[in-house]
Formats: sequence, structure tokens, C-alpha cells
Amino acid sequence: MRPQPPRDAETVADVGEFHLIHRVTTGRAQPETTILGPGDDAAVVAVPDGRVVASMDVLVEGVHFRLDWSTPEQVGRKAAAVNLADVVAMGALPSGLLVGVACPPDTPAATIQGIMAGLWEEAAKAGAGVVGGDMVSSATLVISITAMGDMNGLEPVTRSGALVGDVVAVTGRLGWAAAGLAVLGRGFRSPVGIVNAQRSPEPPYEEGPRAAEAGATSMIDISDGLLQDLGHIADSSGVAIDIRTELLPLHPRLLDVASALGGDARHWALTGGEDHALAATFPGPKAVPEGWTTIGTVRAGEGVTVDGRTYEKPPGWEHWRA
Amino acid sequence: MRPQPPRDAETVADVGEFHLIHRVTTGRAQPETTILGPGDDAAVVAVPDGRVVASMDVLVEGVHFRLDWSTPEQVGRKAAAVNLADVVAMGALPSGLLVGVACPPDTPAATIQGIMAGLWEEAAKAGAGVVGGDMVSSATLVISITAMGDMNGLEPVTRSGALVGDVVAVTGRLGWAAAGLAVLGRGFRSPVGIVNAQRSPEPPYEEGPRAAEAGATSMIDISDGLLQDLGHIADSSGVAIDIRTELLPLHPRLLDVASALGGDARHWALTGGEDHALAATFPGPKAVPEGWTTIGTVRAGEGVTVDGRTYEKPPGWEHWRA
Repeated sequence: MRPQPPRDAETVADVGEFHLIHRVTTGRAQPETTILGPGDDAAVVAVPDGRVVASMDVLVEGVHFRLDWSTPEQVGRKAAAVNLADVVAMGALPSGLLVGVACPPDTPAATIQGIMAGLWEEAAKAGAGVVGGDMVSSATLVISITAMGDMNGLEPVTRSGALVGDVVAVTGRLGWAAAGLAVLGRGFRSPVGIVNAQRSPEPPYEEGPRAAEAGATSMIDISDGLLQDLGHIADSSGVAIDIRTELLPLHPRLLDVASALGGDARHWALTGGEDHALAATFPGPKAVPEGWTTIGTVRAGEGVTVDGRTYEKPPGWEHWRA
Repeated sequence: MRPQPPRDAETVADVGEFHLIHRVTTGRAQPETTILGPGDDAAVVAVPDGRVVASMDVLVEGVHFRLDWSTPEQVGRKAAAVNLADVVAMGALPSGLLVGVACPPDTPAATIQGIMAGLWEEAAKAGAGVVGGDMVSSATLVISITAMGDMNGLEPVTRSGALVGDVVAVTGRLGWAAAGLAVLGRGFRSPVGIVNAQRSPEPPYEEGPRAAEAGATSMIDISDGLLQDLGHIADSSGVAIDIRTELLPLHPRLLDVASALGGDARHWALTGGEDHALAATFPGPKAVPEGWTTIGTVRAGEGVTVDGRTYEKPPGWEHWRA
């Protein structure tokens, strides 16, 4: 499945672990929070708040990414993004990433360098640095990322704080990655904006801390789909959530793709994961920050409903995700 | 190579990711530093010092561990130990582990539960909790660990602070894992103490922070072998290090195994890795804490010597490590 590199392409084994680490770390700018970067037994990162927010994600070639669908840079950006989104979903400011790469010795060195370049770029977008990691040999290419962040004096926004009467709001892209997957699955490579949304998401990093500051009572990053992730908030908080479809932000591009492929943009927005948008609950409409769209309300009860009813997927709809 | 489970053994796929995470986290006691444990977008861990020390290690089945040589519990203990040792080698107090498990869907659930049990036990020994992680599907079993710790008001002890005139000291086991590998490599399963040293190391967790408090100028955990790891200190600090073999602590059990196998205990102690002992430099003999053994001195120059000479491995010695 992987694109074939030229026969004489320099491999990871040719370069060696130490030299490869040197290549992917040299000349990179660290943020002020990096007290000690790569090269010692461990990294040291400033967390002035005295509480570190930390999350780990593991991405496996063929399961979470494909090097025939994405460039190494896009894979690196996605690997960083999915984890940085978890940190901002607590309301924290991202500071550092640790990166573990396990790969076959015959992996082209350029592939790993590309993945690392993507990681650095995405980390920088979120204000973080790549502060350390590990590189080892493995039959399967596996990328492990730990993202760390600082609460900046605010309380962590968990999944369990939603209260009856709160409003539900979202920010970031809804349904773009699902639409991109549908496009790729039909063998198309455009529209590029939609396809790239699947290859590397663009989480709204600044909105997590903003929501925490605005008094969000609960928050989650949408990795499995809006309905499923709101379900986690409803379960953890012991409440019910109702979404109004007329309030769902459906981007015109999404509607175009849906129309071209015979898909359903509303369905993508409700069930598509991997965009790493943010969903949160706020104590009333006035607390919802600019840049967020109110889409529903928190009620007594349990579960998530759409327009007051259990959501059923559109008839004839093919589910692309395994 | 892996021992065959019974045909009807419950697999990871049978149990499912969410239930398996539930099984391996339920009923576990978290240390006081765990503000928010598994189950949300990210964990929150107290680092009252305002600086988090963090390290990642990736362990691959068949490369870093073998399930026909070690029990799942031993694999889990080792995975935690190698990473916790990196954190204490900075002088930090370990607080939390994040654990990523990538494994084939037909992996027995009991294997993953055993690995996780070992991780929890080893983390508890070091004062840390398992605060979060990820479980995904992969063709190869890969365990990724991030250990985090707190500096407790002390300065991080790096590899680059050794000064001419310092003394070099070690604590923990030297050569045990190498001896254990030699025993296993010859098809023996005893002595158990030596063999288990290879299966799961016992890093001297308390000695890292103690050395930092005693004013250690540099420190490293011995993962690649005493000479090689002291080489990292010498390089980073711009100094030379000389080891006196008559000062090397050689445990009687090591001498027994060496005699039985025709091995060389001194060679194991100088070059064997994976024991995760600690080596550090101190500003003079009086600064060396109890429990540490002085084995050499820091001099002007570069590189590591043994009794004033470049070390050469004993003739006829077979190198067991790939």
C-alpha cells in the first residue's frame, strides 16, 4: 500500500537512531516553556500552574493513517493534532510533546524526517515544542505521542460538569474529515480542502483555554463524532443533551461534496469523527464565547437526542468508518 | 515464539477497548499527585515545583521483550521501570505514567491485563500512578510509556554538569541483566534472581532524588552499559572519566554465574545495560550519599577509560546483545 521509495533511498537503519534524532531535532526552536529539550534522560517543561495536563495517543500505520493517502508531513501533523486537541479540551495551554517512533529498519529516513517535520509544525501552531521521545525498531510503524499542557490558573474542564439548563456549543470543523474520507473512498483526490481535513485535522487550539476562561462547565474534543462524544459528556455528567439540527453549522463546501457524492452533510456533522472540533457546555447563552456556535441544550435525563428524538442514520447511508 | 494461549482464551477484540480499559483501571489506588486519572480527554497531575520532568520509552515485542521469556507482569514492570529510571536520573520524584498499548486484536486479554498489572505495581514502587493512556489495534505488540515527575524544588541533574575533580559513583545493580541474558541464552532458567533481573530491572528509585539533594553534578541511568552511559556524561560535560576496576561492586551471585558459564562478571558490570542502575558525579568523596559506591574520577580530557586505559573486551567473550 505504501508508495515505493527509490531503491537506493536512505533507510532509517542506514542513518541510525542517534543521527536520525540529531537530524530531526537540530535547528528547531523551542518555546519558552522548554527548560530542557531532547538529549538527556528526560525533558523538563515549565508548568507554572503546578498542574500538568497530559494525554497520550498511539497511531498505527494502516489503522490510523496511510502513507499512500497522506504525506509523511500530514501524518505527523495529524499525530500531533489529535493529542494536542485532548489537552486543549481540558482548557489547558499546550507546552510540550514527547514522540515515540517504532518503525521497520528499512523505512526511508525521509519518511520519518517528514513525520517529525509535521509534528514540529503542528506543535508550534499550538504553542508547544517537541521536547523528547524515543526511536526504536518494529515490524509495524507506530507513532506514540504524549502532549502536555498547563492550566494557567484555571480549573480543568472535564466531561462531568454539565448541568441541566446549560447550553451546548461547538467550535471548529464538523463533518469535514468524514466528507474527506468519503471522497477518498470513492477514489477522488479533490476538493483538496475537504480531503486534507481527513489527512490532517485543524483543531481550534485557542478555543479550549478560551472556553475554560468563559466558564465552560464541561468540554470534549470530537474524535469519535459529535453525537458519540456528547454522549460521553451526558453519561459522565448524568444529564441528557438535545441537539437542534437547524443550529448545526454546515459549511457550504460540505454541502457541495454531499450533493456531488449523494452523501448527507448533516450526517457527517453529527457522526463524523477525526475533525477534533471542540464541544462544550456553558451556563447560559451569554457565556458562549465568540467563535462558538450554540447547537443545543442540557436537560434532565440521559443520552443524546437530535431534535428531541433518537438519531437514526439516513436510509441507504453507507458507513465509511470501520 | 509466544506461548500459545488456550484456544478459547478471551481476546482483546472479544473484550473491546472500553471494557479492557475499565478492567485495568478499576480499583487501583492513585497517589495524591493524581488530580484527574484515566477517563477524560487528558489526565491532570500535580507538579508543585512548577516544572514537569517527562520521558518516553517505546518497547516492542521481540525487540525489547519476549513473552516466552517473561510473564506479562514482568514485561509491564520492565516497561515502567526503564522509563521511571529516566525520570529519577534527573533527580525528580516520579508521579504519573501514561501507557499506550498497540496490539493485535487476537492478543489474549489476560496478556494485556498482566502487563497493566505489572505497570501499576512498578509505578506504585516508585510512588507514581498510571494516570492515562491509549489502546489501539496493531500487527505488532508495542508498549509506549511516558513517565512524569516533579523536581521538588531541586535543580534537574543533567548529563552535562560533571566537573574535573568530581568523583564518579554508582548505585543499583551492575551487570545483573547481562548475566541473566547469558543464562537465558544458554537455555537455563536459574538462578532465578539473576534471570529475573533481565526480565524486570529494579532501579534504585529513591537514590535519584537523594543524589540531587546531595549535590550531584551530573547523573544518568545505565540503560546501555556503564561505560557507554558514562561516555554520554563525559561527552556532554566535556570531561574524561576514569573507572577503577578494583572499586567496581561485583555481587557474589554475579561471580558465581560468571564462574559457572565461563563469563566475566567485570565485563558484565562494565558493559551490561538494562539494569537501570544510576551513575552520577559528585563534588568530592564527602558528597557521595550512603548507598552509593565510588568507582572513579572525573579528569580533564575526553572519553572513558578503565584503570587508565581504553577498555577492551575479554578475549573469547561472546557479545550477547544485538
